[in-house]
Amino acid sequence: MIRPSGRNADALRPVQVTRNFTKHAEGSVLIACGDTKVLCTASVEEKVPPFLRGAGKGWVTAEYSMLPRATRERVARESAKGRIGGRTHEIQRLIGRSLRAAVDLQALGERTIWVDCDVLQADGGTRTASITGACLAVADAVQHLRTVGQLRNNPLRDWVAAVSVGVYQGQAVLDLDYAEDSNADVDMNVVMTGAGAFVEVQGTAEGAVFSAEQMAEMLALARKGIAELVARQHQECPEARS
Amino acid sequence: MIRPSGRNADALRPVQVTRNFTKHAEGSVLIACGDTKVLCTASVEEKVPPFLRGAGKGWVTAEYSMLPRATRERVARESAKGRIGGRTHEIQRLIGRSLRAAVDLQALGERTIWVDCDVLQADGGTRTASITGACLAVADAVQHLRTVGQLRNNPLRDWVAAVSVGVYQGQAVLDLDYAEDSNADVDMNVVMTGAGAFVEVQGTAEGAVFSAEQMAEMLALARKGIAELVARQHQECPEARS
Amino acid sequence: MIRPSGRNADALRPVQVTRNFTKHAEGSVLIACGDTKVLCTASVEEKVPPFLRGAGKGWVTAEYSMLPRATRERVARESAKGRIGGRTHEIQRLIGRSLRAAVDLQALGERTIWVDCDVLQADGGTRTASITGACLAVADAVQHLRTVGQLRNNPLRDWVAAVSVGVYQGQAVLDLDYAEDSNADVDMNVVMTGAGAFVEVQGTAEGAVFSAEQMAEMLALARKGIAELVARQHQECPEARS
Amino acid sequence: MIRPSGRNADALRPVQVTRNFTKHAEGSVLIACGDTKVLCTASVEEKVPPFLRGAGKGWVTAEYSMLPRATRERVARESAKGRIGGRTHEIQRLIGRSLRAAVDLQALGERTIWVDCDVLQADGGTRTASITGACLAVADAVQHLRTVGQLRNNPLRDWVAAVSVGVYQGQAVLDLDYAEDSNADVDMNVVMTGAGAFVEVQGTAEGAVFSAEQMAEMLALARKGIAELVARQHQECPEARS
Amino acid sequence: MIRPSGRNADALRPVQVTRNFTKHAEGSVLIACGDTKVLCTASVEEKVPPFLRGAGKGWVTAEYSMLPRATRERVARESAKGRIGGRTHEIQRLIGRSLRAAVDLQALGERTIWVDCDVLQADGGTRTASITGACLAVADAVQHLRTVGQLRNNPLRDWVAAVSVGVYQGQAVLDLDYAEDSNADVDMNVVMTGAGAFVEVQGTAEGAVFSAEQMAEMLALARKGIAELVARQHQECPEARS
Amino acid sequence: MIRPSGRNADALRPVQVTRNFTKHAEGSVLIACGDTKVLCTASVEEKVPPFLRGAGKGWVTAEYSMLPRATRERVARESAKGRIGGRTHEIQRLIGRSLRAAVDLQALGERTIWVDCDVLQADGGTRTASITGACLAVADAVQHLRTVGQLRNNPLRDWVAAVSVGVYQGQAVLDLDYAEDSNADVDMNVVMTGAGAFVEVQGTAEGAVFSAEQMAEMLALARKGIAELVARQHQECPEARS
Repeated sequence: MIRPSGRNADALRPVQVTRNFTKHAEGSVLIACGDTKVLCTASVEEKVPPFLRGAGKGWVTAEYSMLPRATRERVARESAKGRIGGRTHEIQRLIGRSLRAAVDLQALGERTIWVDCDVLQADGGTRTASITGACLAVADAVQHLRTVGQLRNNPLRDWVAAVSVGVYQGQAVLDLDYAEDSNADVDMNVVMTGAGAFVEVQGTAEGAVFSAEQMAEMLALARKGIAELVARQHQECPEARS
Repeated sequence: MIRPSGRNADALRPVQVTRNFTKHAEGSVLIACGDTKVLCTASVEEKVPPFLRGAGKGWVTAEYSMLPRATRERVARESAKGRIGGRTHEIQRLIGRSLRAAVDLQALGERTIWVDCDVLQADGGTRTASITGACLAVADAVQHLRTVGQLRNNPLRDWVAAVSVGVYQGQAVLDLDYAEDSNADVDMNVVMTGAGAFVEVQGTAEGAVFSAEQMAEMLALARKGIAELVARQHQECPEARS
Repeated sequence: MIRPSGRNADALRPVQVTRNFTKHAEGSVLIACGDTKVLCTASVEEKVPPFLRGAGKGWVTAEYSMLPRATRERVARESAKGRIGGRTHEIQRLIGRSLRAAVDLQALGERTIWVDCDVLQADGGTRTASITGACLAVADAVQHLRTVGQLRNNPLRDWVAAVSVGVYQGQAVLDLDYAEDSNADVDMNVVMTGAGAFVEVQGTAEGAVFSAEQMAEMLALARKGIAELVARQHQECPEARS
Repeated sequence: MIRPSGRNADALRPVQVTRNFTKHAEGSVLIACGDTKVLCTASVEEKVPPFLRGAGKGWVTAEYSMLPRATRERVARESAKGRIGGRTHEIQRLIGRSLRAAVDLQALGERTIWVDCDVLQADGGTRTASITGACLAVADAVQHLRTVGQLRNNPLRDWVAAVSVGVYQGQAVLDLDYAEDSNADVDMNVVMTGAGAFVEVQGTAEGAVFSAEQMAEMLALARKGIAELVARQHQECPEARS
Repeated sequence: MIRPSGRNADALRPVQVTRNFTKHAEGSVLIACGDTKVLCTASVEEKVPPFLRGAGKGWVTAEYSMLPRATRERVARESAKGRIGGRTHEIQRLIGRSLRAAVDLQALGERTIWVDCDVLQADGGTRTASITGACLAVADAVQHLRTVGQLRNNPLRDWVAAVSVGVYQGQAVLDLDYAEDSNADVDMNVVMTGAGAFVEVQGTAEGAVFSAEQMAEMLALARKGIAELVARQHQECPEARS
Repeated sequence: MIRPSGRNADALRPVQVTRNFTKHAEGSVLIACGDTKVLCTASVEEKVPPFLRGAGKGWVTAEYSMLPRATRERVARESAKGRIGGRTHEIQRLIGRSLRAAVDLQALGERTIWVDCDVLQADGGTRTASITGACLAVADAVQHLRTVGQLRNNPLRDWVAAVSVGVYQGQAVLDLDYAEDSNADVDMNVVMTGAGAFVEVQGTAEGAVFSAEQMAEMLALARKGIAELVARQHQECPEARS
């Protein structure tokens, strides 16, 4: 089998990272995984949601959206439809949980980091690119708080990155682009820490099923890909883990 | 470690199934997994959603809701809030995908099966109980269509059942109830077929992480529990797989 | 004229009451009036709505919903439509007002009883079955508050029950089921107390009219039916009126 | 007992009717019942709702709203709140049903009459004033259709008018104004035809109850008041019943 | 060119003003500009929006709506559609800004004037008639506050009035009615003070453009028309500027 | 007076244009006016809105949004709030009208150009930058249609560009940035064609007024600035006007 992109089964797409892509946010990272481009910003708010008030710890939450023409066909805005769809809900909850695994909420103190992931261009894997990019944006926001003296301890416990794996034409492959994703039997999103622990595993077979063996192959590919992504995160912002 | 319920780590809660719980639906199953009770109905509609029109195949879709006082504290209705929350979206998409893995949509013909899972009483694992119960309701609806002569071939390809597994106080356990679920580090919902293939794996660690070893333990427990649930489905309605 | 059910013009359908149908609510009653089945729960909240704060008295409010396949044809959920329809608004306001006639709000103290009436199966008369069942659920919730010592005086002033009457094929009949209701010229819902006073009278003639004589006949039937329902309430829970 | 307005217990407030109050609508009536002023328009649309298509008959439907400062305190617009409240739903359903009792939908043909009742100034009894005024607006719209030759037979079967009655300080009174309405124990809205048949009876006792005797007194007052209102309708537009 | 109404290019439509059209509002003005009739009420609320709390000054805000049959064809209510459209938003923001130019918010003190402009009948120029009428309603509300002693200084700094101008069949004309408005190349709404200063200029050419010369002609006509409207305002309520 | 940016009163901010910023849209332009950065895409859809069906002409419509952290303080998404605010409505209607002045809808044929203006970073003048950038995106989309042979005649009639002018500390200035805009007495957005005709003039004085002389000064500055912007548009894409 030859992948549409010509990549090896275990090859990531090229990753490009632009920090400080916009100027107002405490963290602002444009991440490109191949042709998928996501602007991830991290905004610090000096209060916490009602359910945490007085608990002496912070919160990290995420919102996700695609620009209407990030995709091959224009998609109507969710603001125009008056409601956020199920897919968006699922993705932004996933991003938020993943980032909270990277952050020591106690050390963050009573503040919220709002993460916004806005997909400027989509070519498969937007939710995993969002997580990888957003972790860098959170790192920059945390660095900002440390620089201005608002944090004593570093709340970033570890890097968190994500990648999709799947079964395409019977074979397990890493980091599916749109051409693969729209034809894959199985699609699995994996989120892991720099230390190699799982944060999330979400495997889905629309109209198909997968075997325990295929699952093991996919998890191995994910482990390899995420290790490369974490290395890249660390290279971009080594000070974040000091 | 002793589980709050006193169960062994690999023990399911007692399962009770009441078929034809209500009289109008083509399939109507009340499933009780311990104190979690879900009414699952399957309704046949002789048309398909717009994206499938003329494609010569059918559709299975699901909706999920909890009665306001299914829970310890009363929860406001989503109809009163005017919108469906992210958790509900996630769950009903999961149920729908799981059931579509059980049904040959081609053999179903151009009709839709609407599955409604309404939680009457909640004690953890409502989404997995919904899938297990709904598969029986779909089986009954399919049997109804076969009985009245509207289906030549049996579209039920296999049973599909689901269970939650997790890590509670450091140990992998099967079929978490609320007392465990609300204190677990890791929560994983697994959906499998009667033949033992995976349909969905959704593992989540809120504020924690899990190792590859823990994952393997959880998957083994899930496999055991789902095999028991499928046996129970088959015992309830053996004609569905003929 | 022979009624579709074969009942006499002045005969109620068989009534079945299951108390403690679910375990979390302070009051939980499944009432069946023939094939109409409604789960009525009463939940106690230790605060009152803004307009009553500091007034030294409590509140009783109700919500009503039908499960999507409670009916012959599946009906879309109001949560999916994003709004509560006019019929639902009308019914839940009616239930709330009816129950407030049964409860001494002063004696209840600064707390709210939330009543939820969820129709599991519909065969006509769902709103009146809701009122009759909900009054029992409120009674159980009130008993719970008395048992745990949170109430000095009994706030249940009297039983309240409801029934529908109508003109079917020219004759006044009691307790219409769906077969009659969908063909009746006149439909009247009557709510009365155990002492025989009126709480609500709502008579409607869709596309028809009714005479003063017919009205008198319907009111007499309602009085008879409600007396029987109140007797049944009292038999279920005699301690509520002590 | 002396009523706040000094009226006898069986006295209506003065009624003023201005036909053709606005110029675009086929029927446009400003009705004043004392200080309650409602602009009622009837608009003809040459199609019917989906459920009536091809049925060879027409439809009459109503919407009701209050201007924000029709009342003592300004009330927020329902458009600004993004939803129509329960009270509004109840009232517009009542108006629609009442008018359909006045109109032979077969004779109306496949068209819809949209009735809009907008309360310019409120002083109690806005829903009953709406019905009485709207029936005149419908009559004018029907006359317009007859004049331009679009109707062979007169679809107005009879006049329909409405009034409120209640128990105020222990005594049954006719046509309550705000000062009485806000203090009444019982409030009943009655809709009748010119021929003296009932269309709707809606009696409500918020936090109170009423006896069969009080009900009879209220109904007698309503009958008297409605007879006067129908006489006034006929005087305004005698040609409508020819 | 002869205008559809036969008016000269620089002639306003006849203006009629009815003060105290309804009885509850502090200011209530029915303004008719030709066949355009708008009920403008001003309601005083003794608090300010959150962004002004503690700032020691007041606020003026406006809402605008058309009755469904104010127009040639019935238009669905925005409350029924569940949202306020773009045109309504634009107009009510314009009215609010215009009135705030007339009022010294410091002198008004910490209170809000809610202005409601409800179009009873539309024939072009409803937003400009709303502004002219609403300024009178605000003047009456302010007079009411002065009369009851709640204001030391007069917060009405100047009259504010508005008119539309446009290019119709190549010629600049004043105060377009619907027949002109729906065929005009250019439509400009101008708001000015009694002293002749601009508050708002909003010129729009749907599918066309306009020259600097045409703009000058339109502004001259607007100046003339607004001077006449301000004179009329002053004649109605000379005490407001004392 | 010295402007916060040090610019002369009649100086534009530096303009940067990146065509083909994203790959899916028929036109995709990132425009930067100083620190204001807007991504403008033009998407071609081969159908027209209902009101134009069969009319043999096309349509151009626009949507506008700001990313949550485009601004100094994070602003909640309109999708999360469930509705589009008044300011957004105003702006997207303005953009749409402005672009329709640039396009011969007859020559466009029965198709729609959807313009999306998403503000990545805001520093004043986002709506005028959107118009100037969107006109280029429309030009690119039109060129695409010509290149693939779907258009015989060039529907781009002229360039359209926009700029803001205002009165800042008593002096008329061109192209206000945020520091000026938030302190200006008067703010006017002007849209003009390459030929120097007006498309829109929207002058607003929040809490202030402006004289005829100030208006003339502002219009002269706008004319100068727009001429420079049009020159820049033409330099970017000279083929668009051939």
